[in-house]
Amino acid sequence: MSNMSQVSNQKIKEEDGKETFVNGVSVTKLLQSTEAVKNDTALSKFKFQAKGKWIFGAHIQTSIDDYYGASQTYNRAQPFVYDGDEPAVLFGTDLAANPLEYVLVALNGCLTTALVYNASAQGIYLEEVESTLEGNMDVRGAMGLSKEVRNGYENIKVSFRVKSSAPKEKIKELIEVAQMRSPVFDILSNPTPIEVTLQE
Amino acid sequence: MSNMSQVSNQKIKEEDGKETFVNGVSVTKLLQSTEAVKNDTALSKFKFQAKGKWIFGAHIQTSIDDYYGASQTYNRAQPFVYDGDEPAVLFGTDLAANPLEYVLVALNGCLTTALVYNASAQGIYLEEVESTLEGNMDVRGAMGLSKEVRNGYENIKVSFRVKSSAPKEKIKELIEVAQMRSPVFDILSNPTPIEVTLQE
Repeated sequence: MSNMSQVSNQKIKEEDGKETFVNGVSVTKLLQSTEAVKNDTALSKFKFQAKGKWIFGAHIQTSIDDYYGASQTYNRAQPFVYDGDEPAVLFGTDLAANPLEYVLVALNGCLTTALVYNASAQGIYLEEVESTLEGNMDVRGAMGLSKEVRNGYENIKVSFRVKSSAPKEKIKELIEVAQMRSPVFDILSNPTPIEVTLQE
Repeated sequence: MSNMSQVSNQKIKEEDGKETFVNGVSVTKLLQSTEAVKNDTALSKFKFQAKGKWIFGAHIQTSIDDYYGASQTYNRAQPFVYDGDEPAVLFGTDLAANPLEYVLVALNGCLTTALVYNASAQGIYLEEVESTLEGNMDVRGAMGLSKEVRNGYENIKVSFRVKSSAPKEKIKELIEVAQMRSPVFDILSNPTPIEVTLQE
């Protein structure tokens, strides 16, 4: 793989008539979609959805199925079902990750995807990408014991380890681009309006 | 259950020597922990962690294991491993939910837990809690095609359906309290500092 690590965008574009993959990502489709969205902004609207069901105690199931994007609704063959729970110290039975841990799952997935996609678009081959994440919080906020303490994470720290034949400076640049492009990084870093209603 | 739906906090506190559960939540432990944290704020510091591994394309695995809280580190018997991917329209193979869908999993779990815990603390029995969530976005932000469009969700809408013998007004109040207490609601609604580094 390493001798292909510096395939330029130009070269990829020149390969007419066949689909080019870098890091398992179709750069051909990535470029085609970017062009398509540029010319028809209706294609850029997406809606992701979830359905929740409380089981018992802190055990909650969330199902992910249909989504809307690129002017159509997509139905999966069957939903992805995610259990959530709390550990005993937070009054649950620890059957699955808790919601704060799921935030780290979302952030990790999004930053890594942004990193990989942008590497692919630039023709940079990656061999390994690993990460560690931590979120620090003080539960006095959520327990209603302090007005000075926020409910959520005070901070989140993410550390990447990337193995690639590309220069270190290039990888550092990709880490910057990942933060500039990642939707979940944006959702956590900046206020996102949430409307919660009760069905009559 | 319904004849027990208005057990007051006072009554729960009077039941000395045995553990009282409401909605599968130990109200006894909830009250004891609240007292303990009030008297020793070192107990309120928590750190949740995740480890990420890029597999191929948009397929990423995130593992959840150890966490720190109440002055100790907890090790699970084995990690919870979550796959993430993107659907084909977003250049993946749709093996699992994508990061933006995981945000909805986190938010749903957290709001529902906050609702259930606060109901339990007030002695309100819940029969069913279901929810639907949607997150709306314009992918031009993440694709780098527009500076006016943000990368993440423009808005998130959550709708709860709650079955309980408690008065509707009480349930509405619980929905409000859930938003005031939920850590993930706070993380999404307000800016959370994220530090991303590359290991040397």
